[in-house]
Amino acid sequence: MSGSSIGKNFTVTTWGESHGKAIGVVIDGCPAGLPLCEEDIQKDLDRRRPGQSPYSTPRNEEDMVNILSGTFEGITTGTPISLIIYNHDQRSKDYSQIANVYRPGHADYTYHQKYGIWDYRGGGRASGRETAARVAAGAVAKKILSRLGVKILAYTLSIGPVKIDPEYFDENEIYKNPLAMPDRKAFQKAAEYIEQMKEKGDSTGGVVECMINGLPCGVGEPVFEKLDAVLGKAILSIGAVKGIEFGRGFGAAFTTGSQNNDPLTYIQNKGLVKETNNSGGITGGISEGFPIVFRAAFKPTPSIRMAQKTVTHDMQNTELNLGGRHDPVIVPRAVVVVEAMTAITLVDYLFQRILSRMDLIKKALS
Amino acid sequence: MSGSSIGKNFTVTTWGESHGKAIGVVIDGCPAGLPLCEEDIQKDLDRRRPGQSPYSTPRNEEDMVNILSGTFEGITTGTPISLIIYNHDQRSKDYSQIANVYRPGHADYTYHQKYGIWDYRGGGRASGRETAARVAAGAVAKKILSRLGVKILAYTLSIGPVKIDPEYFDENEIYKNPLAMPDRKAFQKAAEYIEQMKEKGDSTGGVVECMINGLPCGVGEPVFEKLDAVLGKAILSIGAVKGIEFGRGFGAAFTTGSQNNDPLTYIQNKGLVKETNNSGGITGGISEGFPIVFRAAFKPTPSIRMAQKTVTHDMQNTELNLGGRHDPVIVPRAVVVVEAMTAITLVDYLFQRILSRMDLIKKALS
Amino acid sequence: MSGSSIGKNFTVTTWGESHGKAIGVVIDGCPAGLPLCEEDIQKDLDRRRPGQSPYSTPRNEEDMVNILSGTFEGITTGTPISLIIYNHDQRSKDYSQIANVYRPGHADYTYHQKYGIWDYRGGGRASGRETAARVAAGAVAKKILSRLGVKILAYTLSIGPVKIDPEYFDENEIYKNPLAMPDRKAFQKAAEYIEQMKEKGDSTGGVVECMINGLPCGVGEPVFEKLDAVLGKAILSIGAVKGIEFGRGFGAAFTTGSQNNDPLTYIQNKGLVKETNNSGGITGGISEGFPIVFRAAFKPTPSIRMAQKTVTHDMQNTELNLGGRHDPVIVPRAVVVVEAMTAITLVDYLFQRILSRMDLIKKALS
Amino acid sequence: MSGSSIGKNFTVTTWGESHGKAIGVVIDGCPAGLPLCEEDIQKDLDRRRPGQSPYSTPRNEEDMVNILSGTFEGITTGTPISLIIYNHDQRSKDYSQIANVYRPGHADYTYHQKYGIWDYRGGGRASGRETAARVAAGAVAKKILSRLGVKILAYTLSIGPVKIDPEYFDENEIYKNPLAMPDRKAFQKAAEYIEQMKEKGDSTGGVVECMINGLPCGVGEPVFEKLDAVLGKAILSIGAVKGIEFGRGFGAAFTTGSQNNDPLTYIQNKGLVKETNNSGGITGGISEGFPIVFRAAFKPTPSIRMAQKTVTHDMQNTELNLGGRHDPVIVPRAVVVVEAMTAITLVDYLFQRILSRMDLIKKALS
Repeated sequence: MSGSSIGKNFTVTTWGESHGKAIGVVIDGCPAGLPLCEEDIQKDLDRRRPGQSPYSTPRNEEDMVNILSGTFEGITTGTPISLIIYNHDQRSKDYSQIANVYRPGHADYTYHQKYGIWDYRGGGRASGRETAARVAAGAVAKKILSRLGVKILAYTLSIGPVKIDPEYFDENEIYKNPLAMPDRKAFQKAAEYIEQMKEKGDSTGGVVECMINGLPCGVGEPVFEKLDAVLGKAILSIGAVKGIEFGRGFGAAFTTGSQNNDPLTYIQNKGLVKETNNSGGITGGISEGFPIVFRAAFKPTPSIRMAQKTVTHDMQNTELNLGGRHDPVIVPRAVVVVEAMTAITLVDYLFQRILSRMDLIKKALS
Repeated sequence: MSGSSIGKNFTVTTWGESHGKAIGVVIDGCPAGLPLCEEDIQKDLDRRRPGQSPYSTPRNEEDMVNILSGTFEGITTGTPISLIIYNHDQRSKDYSQIANVYRPGHADYTYHQKYGIWDYRGGGRASGRETAARVAAGAVAKKILSRLGVKILAYTLSIGPVKIDPEYFDENEIYKNPLAMPDRKAFQKAAEYIEQMKEKGDSTGGVVECMINGLPCGVGEPVFEKLDAVLGKAILSIGAVKGIEFGRGFGAAFTTGSQNNDPLTYIQNKGLVKETNNSGGITGGISEGFPIVFRAAFKPTPSIRMAQKTVTHDMQNTELNLGGRHDPVIVPRAVVVVEAMTAITLVDYLFQRILSRMDLIKKALS
Repeated sequence: MSGSSIGKNFTVTTWGESHGKAIGVVIDGCPAGLPLCEEDIQKDLDRRRPGQSPYSTPRNEEDMVNILSGTFEGITTGTPISLIIYNHDQRSKDYSQIANVYRPGHADYTYHQKYGIWDYRGGGRASGRETAARVAAGAVAKKILSRLGVKILAYTLSIGPVKIDPEYFDENEIYKNPLAMPDRKAFQKAAEYIEQMKEKGDSTGGVVECMINGLPCGVGEPVFEKLDAVLGKAILSIGAVKGIEFGRGFGAAFTTGSQNNDPLTYIQNKGLVKETNNSGGITGGISEGFPIVFRAAFKPTPSIRMAQKTVTHDMQNTELNLGGRHDPVIVPRAVVVVEAMTAITLVDYLFQRILSRMDLIKKALS
Repeated sequence: MSGSSIGKNFTVTTWGESHGKAIGVVIDGCPAGLPLCEEDIQKDLDRRRPGQSPYSTPRNEEDMVNILSGTFEGITTGTPISLIIYNHDQRSKDYSQIANVYRPGHADYTYHQKYGIWDYRGGGRASGRETAARVAAGAVAKKILSRLGVKILAYTLSIGPVKIDPEYFDENEIYKNPLAMPDRKAFQKAAEYIEQMKEKGDSTGGVVECMINGLPCGVGEPVFEKLDAVLGKAILSIGAVKGIEFGRGFGAAFTTGSQNNDPLTYIQNKGLVKETNNSGGITGGISEGFPIVFRAAFKPTPSIRMAQKTVTHDMQNTELNLGGRHDPVIVPRAVVVVEAMTAITLVDYLFQRILSRMDLIKKALS
């Protein structure tokens, strides 16, 4: 596993297993001069934290973050920022049952085959718990972005068959309901649907949508690090994500050029505008300066109470009965993870944008 | 633009503009001992070449590849392989019309804003022509993979509303029809649809599907370089791709855990099998050792003959009439590009797979 | 500061300041299957620890290492290994005197100018304390290398004017005397010399030599990552190192080709031998399979008791009287740091060596 | 060989063998807006070109550079710059003699062992000819630096036992004499010495010194990419370099702290000054804003006319008589290579310097 870092100039390295002593993240390349305290980070961690609603696992982790390095008197110093979150709820007792079985939909089999050794406790490194470290780093990235006028907003677009109605889109609602849906009615229907799943011992998937506002034109490094390509990598690296699409996305494949091209118009006192945003705000892999929008598909939580067929480590067919209580849906808790991965990526490429022109370089160094 | 390289141990760097003197690619990290000649590469270039059917632009480029370094007596030496394709059809005369106008759906505006200078001739670096260099590198990657038992197969899944019927899937058909569709009937319908688009001066999008067979379990480097994440980046870096999904993809978001988990079963004389492949062959970001499948959505070619509203460089509203003849659909020519980007990515991560275990390292060095 | 990581496939990231809460290191890319416990690491940390002899600073840090992730039941799992060392001796009281003054020979001025903010407590990130994290990572690297038959041996070659006599070279002596000199007589003279420096309130520099045995031929990646180039970078990244040379080094510049070329001879029952080792075991940037030898020059400790002219942060000329007790020589404690940086580098390039040939790749994957 | 690229944001990738069709370089990350034409590059190539004086090999290569991409109407566009130099003097006839023999001091043996295949013609990739590509990229880097006020000056400090006298240092002289020595008398003595070597069929080494002026304070990325570390890597990657030292270098190891620390003084109307420059202009791995100075030791050319003992590929002891005419000294032609590698490195880290502070980032993006 040598893929625990992401980012070229703003580099985020996570470490830690679900049931190890702690999880953490090192941020290298955070510029000096940014005010930063634990509270800045904690508020995003709290959004991801389990055990807060009937729709997530009751595992109770406080997820208190500690800044171990990289700040002096509340200001970043330009040196690496090390953040740590201790694991308190490390009950290993529950895992004897799965120590020798490959859970369907989980990474048990692939990790075991790849490494020849498998820390089965709570999914080890493959646990969703690892994303807490991403969220912590994302909070730092978001603070940088906010200073540069960039805002990221993610929310639950759909859960199972229940989709929000764009007409009733209400940003405030995202933070008010535990499913992070920007439409109160959709939230209520989705909550009902989740209750049904819980009763059956089943789980559901969903879609997260993310909007970026305020990002200037010119971000993204063709030809291999196009902005959509690197955002795609960042989002697809979140466990459970099975697809990503920008703007009209898969829908674009079924349209014609005259339908899908976004005409540009210049309007006095308003500047350049786009009548449509089929591109999702990125063309040629470079941000247009217009809002960016993408969607990520999350598969249903693989841990379900229903009985499942699978095999043991020594290839005996068996039936798995996980019992216990599991997240019936991962999507709401993943919203802030999507924001985090987006922020981490944007900081890196917004920084690189400076280096693409002699005039910007001269301005910075003058 | 500092994103012209991809890959850590098998590193591919492309260069060149549509109407410059040449385009090319440098492959660094190709292991020594691989037989390699121009013909190995040319055959994939020929699949991408324009002017071969009524469904692609009549621009006639021979796209003859030349190996400038990295082989000795027909064998790779472990040193960087430099491949060059000279541009012959560089008529700059046609471009006066678009020299001062931002074409909708093209990267004209974003490149100009990012760099402050814009090589408008044929789209410059943003031209689809750049993918010829990818295909050349991909041919080398595919040769390495074939020696290691890995096979990549991409094809057109749909064009506009016309989709192949899986029941009539015929691999040979992919190479027989100019739309690379593995279903003759679907090809015929799609051809008709494209003719309609051509008549209107419009264009169409489509979906490419890609299957990987023979890749061992254990490829992919969590947590940020999961196999789906890095394949996603590679594919999304192809111009015109607006979305990617693995296995059940976006469909998974609408299912339940009990529907979406792939049960594992051990069958005597057959080994481990999966009854379903909703995961698309990757779990936890690591290849399962089962077939991998993903789909990429391509937007319609942005160059259309129909009149379009847009602005000039000095922000005057104008109407663009491109005239000329353009690819009514990019999808069939993109099939081999999808294969190439897949191959380039797989080589890199298959190599890294070795380094993830002490026993494999010892075996290699013993 | 985005240079806190080193290594491509075996990646080491350090973090932490001298007087922060802790310092630490994340190792990403350590292969699975290596037995590893704290004791493996602690023994190298103890070699670097201050306060152990009259020749080092009396600051008393226990430097106890803690493995936070990456192992399971005493075996590495292939996931990132996070190591932490808490800082106990964080007395900030001593630093009021230097809070506003640039100490000559220290990085105070350059850090302050670069970042606009300066954690003056004990040198912050520029402190030699940061090397404890390198030593911890180096211990892991050395354990990997020992499994692959590679041995690294560093020692003090000279302190000020006192040099060891190669005739009396005794490897065991390195661990017996606190100056890590492989020659007892030289140690005694050097100890006397250091006593003189201490009395004067001055300090001394020295040279560390490092030998590598058992490294196979073929390690190093031309043309920019030649083995001497990457070892050079690794060693020059240690604070206080002002020069490095391989084999005959600077001496080679004064010789002739006939003197400096190492003739190769094949001897029955013995294999290929080199009569001389002017190359230092590396030719063309690739290990020869013969012993590698290099030397690193360390400047004298910049912290001295003698009065020094310098300026304050607001550019007032002043005289600095550091008082207190400082390492009169850094060299003996740096010996294990040289070993660590060498080991970290060798692991990375020994791994890459596998990827340079199709036959080795096939062997590993078969 | 996956080490053919150097630089993170300004990335230089070289390719090509001595007797292949061509050699070349791709520069990715050159900012848009820099005027650039072939002549800018050619003038540095001409300084490296062989066959120009009695002190270099008579091999006659025109070394004409061609810009294949990355500029439009004489200005860089931000896209990768591909430079090519065709090999004209590819007489393969001369190499039958060495096809089966490992030349002492050359990389024949190590390349053959590493890759299992060896392009013996003229040293293949290990040939000094590869540095022409570095010089071409270096010329681009120097042009960027000159726009940012940074000047690099390298020259021959010594050849064999003949050293320049600093009292007679004359910058203009560097370009006047074919040995690039900034002291006419030293040049004359060195020329005589080389004549003696030529007569004997022997060769000589030497030392190159390099000075950097105008680099602002704050360049270099601790802790692993300290400016001296990355310059060290860049210079040690030049074939024949066996050592590098900064400022007082190895001499510092023999001094005391009170002798070696550079006191800082503030002088009215002059600003901050250093009375001495023992540090060589870098402290804590960060440029001080004062002149930087380092020296690189070059070994004697390994190709000599005198008979040498060595072995054949099948391990037969033999005597090698190279005959022909060879560079009796590589140092003068290496001077511009040292400048090139320095420039390539400085551009990369000068760019990164911008990203280390929020205020510089804001300034650039505002």
